[in-house]
Amino acid sequence: MTTATTKKLPILTDEPSSWEGSSLLSVTQITAAGLELLFRVTQEMRTLVRTHGGDDRLRHTILGTVFFEASTRTSGSFQAAILRLGGRNVHVDGQGNSSAAKKGESLEDTLRCLECYVDVTVLRHPVQGSVGKVVNVCEKPVLNAGDGVGEHPTQALLDVFSIYDELELGENNDKKPLVVVLLGDLKNGRTVHSLAKLLSVSQIWGETLTLRYCAPSGLEMPQYIRDFCDAVPSVQQETCSDLADACRDAHVLYVTRIQRERFESDEAYEAGSYIVDKAFMTNAPPKMIVLHPLPRVDEISTDFDSDPRAAYFRQMENGMFVRMALLALVCGKT
Amino acid sequence: MTTATTKKLPILTDEPSSWEGSSLLSVTQITAAGLELLFRVTQEMRTLVRTHGGDDRLRHTILGTVFFEASTRTSGSFQAAILRLGGRNVHVDGQGNSSAAKKGESLEDTLRCLECYVDVTVLRHPVQGSVGKVVNVCEKPVLNAGDGVGEHPTQALLDVFSIYDELELGENNDKKPLVVVLLGDLKNGRTVHSLAKLLSVSQIWGETLTLRYCAPSGLEMPQYIRDFCDAVPSVQQETCSDLADACRDAHVLYVTRIQRERFESDEAYEAGSYIVDKAFMTNAPPKMIVLHPLPRVDEISTDFDSDPRAAYFRQMENGMFVRMALLALVCGKT
Amino acid sequence: MTTATTKKLPILTDEPSSWEGSSLLSVTQITAAGLELLFRVTQEMRTLVRTHGGDDRLRHTILGTVFFEASTRTSGSFQAAILRLGGRNVHVDGQGNSSAAKKGESLEDTLRCLECYVDVTVLRHPVQGSVGKVVNVCEKPVLNAGDGVGEHPTQALLDVFSIYDELELGENNDKKPLVVVLLGDLKNGRTVHSLAKLLSVSQIWGETLTLRYCAPSGLEMPQYIRDFCDAVPSVQQETCSDLADACRDAHVLYVTRIQRERFESDEAYEAGSYIVDKAFMTNAPPKMIVLHPLPRVDEISTDFDSDPRAAYFRQMENGMFVRMALLALVCGKT
Repeated sequence: MTTATTKKLPILTDEPSSWEGSSLLSVTQITAAGLELLFRVTQEMRTLVRTHGGDDRLRHTILGTVFFEASTRTSGSFQAAILRLGGRNVHVDGQGNSSAAKKGESLEDTLRCLECYVDVTVLRHPVQGSVGKVVNVCEKPVLNAGDGVGEHPTQALLDVFSIYDELELGENNDKKPLVVVLLGDLKNGRTVHSLAKLLSVSQIWGETLTLRYCAPSGLEMPQYIRDFCDAVPSVQQETCSDLADACRDAHVLYVTRIQRERFESDEAYEAGSYIVDKAFMTNAPPKMIVLHPLPRVDEISTDFDSDPRAAYFRQMENGMFVRMALLALVCGKT
Repeated sequence: MTTATTKKLPILTDEPSSWEGSSLLSVTQITAAGLELLFRVTQEMRTLVRTHGGDDRLRHTILGTVFFEASTRTSGSFQAAILRLGGRNVHVDGQGNSSAAKKGESLEDTLRCLECYVDVTVLRHPVQGSVGKVVNVCEKPVLNAGDGVGEHPTQALLDVFSIYDELELGENNDKKPLVVVLLGDLKNGRTVHSLAKLLSVSQIWGETLTLRYCAPSGLEMPQYIRDFCDAVPSVQQETCSDLADACRDAHVLYVTRIQRERFESDEAYEAGSYIVDKAFMTNAPPKMIVLHPLPRVDEISTDFDSDPRAAYFRQMENGMFVRMALLALVCGKT
Repeated sequence: MTTATTKKLPILTDEPSSWEGSSLLSVTQITAAGLELLFRVTQEMRTLVRTHGGDDRLRHTILGTVFFEASTRTSGSFQAAILRLGGRNVHVDGQGNSSAAKKGESLEDTLRCLECYVDVTVLRHPVQGSVGKVVNVCEKPVLNAGDGVGEHPTQALLDVFSIYDELELGENNDKKPLVVVLLGDLKNGRTVHSLAKLLSVSQIWGETLTLRYCAPSGLEMPQYIRDFCDAVPSVQQETCSDLADACRDAHVLYVTRIQRERFESDEAYEAGSYIVDKAFMTNAPPKMIVLHPLPRVDEISTDFDSDPRAAYFRQMENGMFVRMALLALVCGKT
């Protein structure tokens, strides 16, 4: 399930120079200490935005954002991230009738051409492995913004950062056992796969990490993800069919969207669907935060939005702060 | 006909602090004194652009422009406005296959997510009331750039500003009786409805305001707009079937486009159509300015474009200056 | 074959003031000395980008880029060019359902409106003569980014600059006889037509210029281009059916794409197609550079990309540097 690349990818550690000029294809490039560095810079970015809106450290840096698949959120937050650091953006919408693709140009050539104009490239593509192919031929940093069922590292980073930040798991704090409930379609969701994997290796939790899976029948977490997490000492994985029961001692409830078409029948959909709303949350732990990668449809009711535990819009904001931190590190300007 | 919102909208006065952080949903939020403030700042913006191209007062401010309906002019002028003040722009084209809408996300959620990245949002949507719904859930300023047959406040503001500025109706001048001829499809034109209403309440005119309606049969000004204007003391409304006669003592001729498909037959279209051209304008008052919201088709001939009374391209420019003023006021940087 | 305009176009010389505020419709506006000036500034721009990424000389300048036809490269490089000089960009995608065009607005009006917001406009349009029509009504500079089978001056400029720069033909060098092989569909390629013409009049070559045409049967260089080049003293034109033979004493091999649908049969395509690859280039002159306007399909193999003679990606980069130089000159900021 890794993204194909013939180039040796750099390992990103707590040494800022290891990030400078590097491409980010997969979260597996980042060490636990590297993650702590990224998260520290992310928190600094939030302070910067809240106090001054941004700064000019990336003045004269151009970020190319190339999206062969629609993504308002990922695209918008990368664009805002570069602009808030004083850089500029050239956006290429690869979905439409781009003249290059129509003429039969390879993806590698399209990106090598764009690289002639910009300093860093962000690429989303519907086909797994595409970003890796591009990294092979590009000389400047390329950041993976999602390649099909492959990786979407900045989504995983913002999810884990949100847990780290909301629960105050920073390095000067006592790290405690962590219980995270993953709810929804755990079979098809790239987001929950990445989250489970990155969380397991992140070491932001203390003695133990419990991943508790709560999925409708037929949409369970795949075995290869379970095997990956099993290989990390002190990670426990559980399944649970009752959501209220799953939440009893949880610190995080991570909700995902279920698509009706994933179910075999309307009855199965009715049986498997769930709604996290104000009423349900009345009996949930008073400090358990609720995350969701968004967009949501009905699985979290808007009547819960004003609850302090509803952390999903703060999570959205973290998407911009994490991407600012990543850009600053890759450009060597932290 | 007002845009639905459950939130109390701020009243915008000649006190700049009343604008700071405020959303603009409707021109009815702006007092007569508030309008004078906006127009004064608009003139300052024009001077700034003509002397220096812009400045950096909105440095590190990001404007999100979200258009669920095409609009080269409104979108382009808002983008140019923020850039000329040193801010940045993230543009979201909501028309195409945006990933969020495809996945069933509500408009409110889409805008709340974008709000995580930007400081001010401009929204155009084809459905009346949409912008009001968004204002209800957003914490940062939202500016209405047109919601279907609802409001399009910045268009009304630039139209009234153009009259105010071209006729030099500023506060140190003697305000005179004002005669404005409105020509074209007055039944379906959102622009002329807003203009008639805002002009009536604006108080930029002196003793009296005469609104003279010149519309083909079946496309007359609706009664509810006439009732609104009737309620303002010293506003007179007249209808006139002969354009030359209508213009005899007019200060402004406001022309709009007529769509052929609005007529019941080709004969009716031939009977009701009109062309303002060089020949017609030879006999019109020598100081009567001609305005048009653009785009035009044939209703104003290009042979009149070089006449000093042809004010429609200056009116276009005013669109940018008014939007710069609005952004500066909303961001508290005048 | 010239672009229609009723306005007298400025001649662009080695006097920078001749460029300031000027529109660029055709390379025929540029004198040989003007070309040397442009190329000198282009080299300065490359140094600037390589040392600092850019500067702020065009701060508060807005470039409008209006594309009625897809063009990732031209559009992206113009956008990057203005951003690297500290200016800003408003991009209008004229391909989709722009509200103006749908309403029947003329191209001239659309561009005059945009001109109200921006300082310089770049226009690409599929219909020959379109850009000329726009220049007639606009008061600010308009730069032609390609009008159908008409001109695409910045492409020709970057091609000739690439030859000038790669072969070090600058003014302090001895200019030598120059041999350029043009390979591919020479009948339908706007790019090779412009290149042949501009190269002929450029005077960057010394005693003689040899243009050697190598085209499949039926796709030969048109007579009117040959006539144009014939009129320049010391330009020799040759045809050659064997590519290896054509390259024997050449300094430049300019390759273009051949579209299969241009051929009458698959057999004709097989007979007329060619591939420049590592094997072929082993026997080519050791200093002969290979150019290509890109995108390529199969006519240059990727196995040749890492050869120092493969100059096509450097040529791409030159596209940005030439456009930066053009913008700086037109804005009077060199």
